[in-house]
Amino acid sequence: MSTDTQALQAEVDRLRLELKTFHVEAGVEKVSIGNYLLTRLAQLGDLVEDHPQIDWVGNCNELNAAYAADGYARIKEGSIGVLTTTFGVGELSAMNGIAGAFSEMVPVLHIVGVPNTAQQKTRPLLHHTLGDGRYDAYGKAASQFTICQQYLMDTHTAAEKIDHAITECITKARPVYLTLPTDLVYREISSERLKMPLSRDIPFNQPEMEQAVVDLIYGRVKAADGDVVVIVDACVIRHNVRKEVDELLKATGFPVYATPMGKTAVDESYFRYGGIYVGSLTHPDVKAKVENAKLVLSIGSLGSDFNTGSFSWNIPKTRQIEFHSTYTEVNFARFNNIGMKHLLPKITERLLDAYHPGHRLPVPAFVKRLPEENTPVTILDLMFVRTLCSSPPKNLATTTTDLHQTLELGPDEHQVQNSISHLWFWPRVGYFFRPKDVIITETGTANFGILDVPLPSRAVLVNQILWGSIGWSVGSTLGAALAAKDVGMERVILFVGDGSLQLSVQEISPMIRKGLKPIIFVLNNKGYSIERYIHGKYRRVPFVPPLQVASLTILPSGYNDVANWKWSSLLDTLNDGGKYSTASYTVNNKEELSELLDNEAFAAADKLQLVEVTMDALDAPLALERQAELTGKGNAYAA
Amino acid sequence: MSTDTQALQAEVDRLRLELKTFHVEAGVEKVSIGNYLLTRLAQLGDLVEDHPQIDWVGNCNELNAAYAADGYARIKEGSIGVLTTTFGVGELSAMNGIAGAFSEMVPVLHIVGVPNTAQQKTRPLLHHTLGDGRYDAYGKAASQFTICQQYLMDTHTAAEKIDHAITECITKARPVYLTLPTDLVYREISSERLKMPLSRDIPFNQPEMEQAVVDLIYGRVKAADGDVVVIVDACVIRHNVRKEVDELLKATGFPVYATPMGKTAVDESYFRYGGIYVGSLTHPDVKAKVENAKLVLSIGSLGSDFNTGSFSWNIPKTRQIEFHSTYTEVNFARFNNIGMKHLLPKITERLLDAYHPGHRLPVPAFVKRLPEENTPVTILDLMFVRTLCSSPPKNLATTTTDLHQTLELGPDEHQVQNSISHLWFWPRVGYFFRPKDVIITETGTANFGILDVPLPSRAVLVNQILWGSIGWSVGSTLGAALAAKDVGMERVILFVGDGSLQLSVQEISPMIRKGLKPIIFVLNNKGYSIERYIHGKYRRVPFVPPLQVASLTILPSGYNDVANWKWSSLLDTLNDGGKYSTASYTVNNKEELSELLDNEAFAAADKLQLVEVTMDALDAPLALERQAELTGKGNAYAA
Repeated sequence: MSTDTQALQAEVDRLRLELKTFHVEAGVEKVSIGNYLLTRLAQLGDLVEDHPQIDWVGNCNELNAAYAADGYARIKEGSIGVLTTTFGVGELSAMNGIAGAFSEMVPVLHIVGVPNTAQQKTRPLLHHTLGDGRYDAYGKAASQFTICQQYLMDTHTAAEKIDHAITECITKARPVYLTLPTDLVYREISSERLKMPLSRDIPFNQPEMEQAVVDLIYGRVKAADGDVVVIVDACVIRHNVRKEVDELLKATGFPVYATPMGKTAVDESYFRYGGIYVGSLTHPDVKAKVENAKLVLSIGSLGSDFNTGSFSWNIPKTRQIEFHSTYTEVNFARFNNIGMKHLLPKITERLLDAYHPGHRLPVPAFVKRLPEENTPVTILDLMFVRTLCSSPPKNLATTTTDLHQTLELGPDEHQVQNSISHLWFWPRVGYFFRPKDVIITETGTANFGILDVPLPSRAVLVNQILWGSIGWSVGSTLGAALAAKDVGMERVILFVGDGSLQLSVQEISPMIRKGLKPIIFVLNNKGYSIERYIHGKYRRVPFVPPLQVASLTILPSGYNDVANWKWSSLLDTLNDGGKYSTASYTVNNKEELSELLDNEAFAAADKLQLVEVTMDALDAPLALERQAELTGKGNAYAA
Repeated sequence: MSTDTQALQAEVDRLRLELKTFHVEAGVEKVSIGNYLLTRLAQLGDLVEDHPQIDWVGNCNELNAAYAADGYARIKEGSIGVLTTTFGVGELSAMNGIAGAFSEMVPVLHIVGVPNTAQQKTRPLLHHTLGDGRYDAYGKAASQFTICQQYLMDTHTAAEKIDHAITECITKARPVYLTLPTDLVYREISSERLKMPLSRDIPFNQPEMEQAVVDLIYGRVKAADGDVVVIVDACVIRHNVRKEVDELLKATGFPVYATPMGKTAVDESYFRYGGIYVGSLTHPDVKAKVENAKLVLSIGSLGSDFNTGSFSWNIPKTRQIEFHSTYTEVNFARFNNIGMKHLLPKITERLLDAYHPGHRLPVPAFVKRLPEENTPVTILDLMFVRTLCSSPPKNLATTTTDLHQTLELGPDEHQVQNSISHLWFWPRVGYFFRPKDVIITETGTANFGILDVPLPSRAVLVNQILWGSIGWSVGSTLGAALAAKDVGMERVILFVGDGSLQLSVQEISPMIRKGLKPIIFVLNNKGYSIERYIHGKYRRVPFVPPLQVASLTILPSGYNDVANWKWSSLLDTLNDGGKYSTASYTVNNKEELSELLDNEAFAAADKLQLVEVTMDALDAPLALERQAELTGKGNAYAA
């Protein structure tokens, strides 16, 4: 049987069994509804042999729990993250995390423990209610941010609803909402359905339509005479088509680039990989290659502002083919319900029969450079700077000091001495990464700083560029670190600013208790630097004029400042009675950081470690400075 | 002019001015929309002379900011709490806090900074969006938890919308949602409307209907021959009728009792105040007085489970008159739109002309008792225990050891030696309180422990018994402490469990930076004790059987346990580079706690102080144990 036929046969079996359960009454094995749900969840992890039970993670709060479920699902592809909260207070606290999973297409199942079914009907004035009997208000709010809401209310429909919720979550890679009333947890139902695993299959494309699309694309590729590049984006990861993309790339030899959200969708050590394409922020070598190609295959694209250099992609639709999870677009023509999961292998197969001219196209090297300052800067840096300046500088800078002058930044803003700048920091940590590292960057300077760093083979980058909720990375690291153990990834490394970490700091505590060993780099620049860039660097007089409000004067307050915590004592404070081994470091200059990174014991990551990296409040990666300038235009406060 | 006429005249003036602003075009003073909003907010605080500017509080996260706005509004009665977040990520993080303000009727204005008006129309794929162009999703969710949503979109309607939002918030004591697009902040509008303060007046009752209700109630009081008691509840505080209630009480001499949510609505040092009525959990002396009275005037009641001893009020409707903010109920007859704010003074006036038999009714003393153990217990304790036992014990216990045996609790559960029990703790801190203290109790053991403690004159208790979101008290303390300074209250004292504090711990940091000096008692019982009580005390084998899930065994995990943080180093970690003076203490036994409470320097509260009080994980106030038993019945997991 072909793969398609096998999958169809499996679906037929599943449907027959589903039908059968409606007729079975006596003599069947019973299972409680609570156990039914747990069994379904356990089945998702059935390939993970060293995972003998479902693991309970007691998060410090619900928002962090949602972030953790999100982080778990991002690393354990093909599975889902699960979050349990109480109704009202708990579920609403998690709402931003759930909405983020919706926005970024991450499969998170939100199970909400709700009052018993009798109370759902009589709606008494219980605690955690709104005081007006509206028991449906939370579900209504949740329906804005989940693709499916299932309310368990009886034994007859519970199993079907549970199966539907999980299937929707996993196949559509989006959050789902499931309520579980207290009185149903131990109520028994038939266990028949459990014998057939849930279908995770994506629907097939309509064959004739798919064939027409394959032919069309084949023709376009041929017309481009092999001058084709591929851009991989977020949905390659979210909709689990890494394998299909890899096969296409290997078969054709097409050069491949990634967007910020697609970074590591393709292994960055792959010899045909050329780095990041992010519109006007792109390295000029890459920019030219991508924008001059006769044809661009854009796979899983997600065209958000920060993912496209503020919508500055310069690739006309006429030269672009877009592959999405539920549709395909060729030269303005949209083919609904032609999804990439099944389409890509057919394209690959068709192109295999043809020719491999893609291999002839040169790809700019995306390799690490040793960071140096006050010595000749790398070509990469220089070219990058040229891209950033609205008018190209007359003379090429040859040192980083020159470079700052080129950018017209004063010495106060960029102390180029021995303090740790972003310009130096990101290339430097590039040398610290290893294969199979999981690297998580917080929304803020870290998301931008990592872009230019080539990551090792099988390393995975996790970010939240579209939703951009600060504090997300901390909870996400907890979930990602748990999943990393499940899927055989190795170190987990978080880069987070001091301001962001303050939002969700308590989640380090469960990391410690769970024996997780991430390395947490705290970029201590004393505030929300990304906000300083977007909404004005200087938050004090004279740059922000005081507001006159009637007879009152509103001083421009330091709203992007945060308290300067004693980061070195944090792990000790959050440890569980000092039961676990942890280590904290503060590095104030390049030597100290380099020494630490080169220390083998540190790099072994055999305990949870926190590194406070002190940085200047107004330093930022160059890409961020440029992005902020563009964003600032959109947000301009018309005077 | 009578008060009514004056108020009507003011309303006429206001309406005329409102009308006028539609006709004024040239020659008027302009104000930016941002300043218009700030001026309106400043006007609310116009009586506070030592408050020369609007104070920006940089919270660590949005949920905590919502809690802080809630706490501020609770203490600064007649004003509102204001919270500013960014759209999507920020506002959704705050949603639980806003819903709590809705549920508990607290006026909180939620200002959301949103993309500019052009983007609101074209809906590009900006960061913080859901990726599908649904810019209205957040407002739809917010509409479930706010009474009014105003979206600023142009200069013509901005002032009117701002005024409407603030007026709704303040007069209805509920949260309101207001969006402010970036491009409108500095756009100028006429400042004419600012000359007339916003109306904070509650609508008058329809005079004939009101008169009929007054007559009816007068007849009922007369028929009761003065055997009338008053119960004050949450809405006396929320709808700002403390003064009207006081006048009624002083005029009639009626005995007065409070519910848990109404505690301190009437000064607890008032000689006709008899303590707490909470259904079957009530001290038997109080219970008899309340339930045997011929007539009960229930003012501002909020009949939630935890506020009524799980709906165990034993007062027939035929003997009860209910005064609410928008209606009145007499012997099953409901009078809509007859609100207590204007009705109560008329009742008082009418009863003044009559007679004062209320003074003859005896009121049980609600006075402090020295906590003692292994010595004769107080009558209060003993009687309380009798109430708690489902069948009264045969012999009265005479010591606290006996008392525990009476309750059939083993010595393991209640170590009656020198460790700090709730039974001892709460009466003991009763001696620490002073007039004008603001006392905040977290949802959990603290909410129940405080009930039996008489509070000094002009002390205010703040709790969140209906919504019950753990972690709320920490953010709320920040807001309450800021408001306390504005309204001339003195010390701010928080009682919070270790589990709850972990949810929102970072908000201590802004307290330090703002120079606030609350005393934070951390009841360290190593987990969520209230949950242990409600959902089974023991979370380990053999009390919770392991679940069998297919071939997997789900061990009952310690889901009510939390990490044992090093509380003594917390303030030092969260301090702003050690700039502020703070102090931390750990007390492990009664002597240590007593010594600290008696220390004048400690009691002076001249810096932020944290006291870790170590307690047994399964100790809890008696009222809580009983409540948990009742709640456990509702939540029973049918086997």
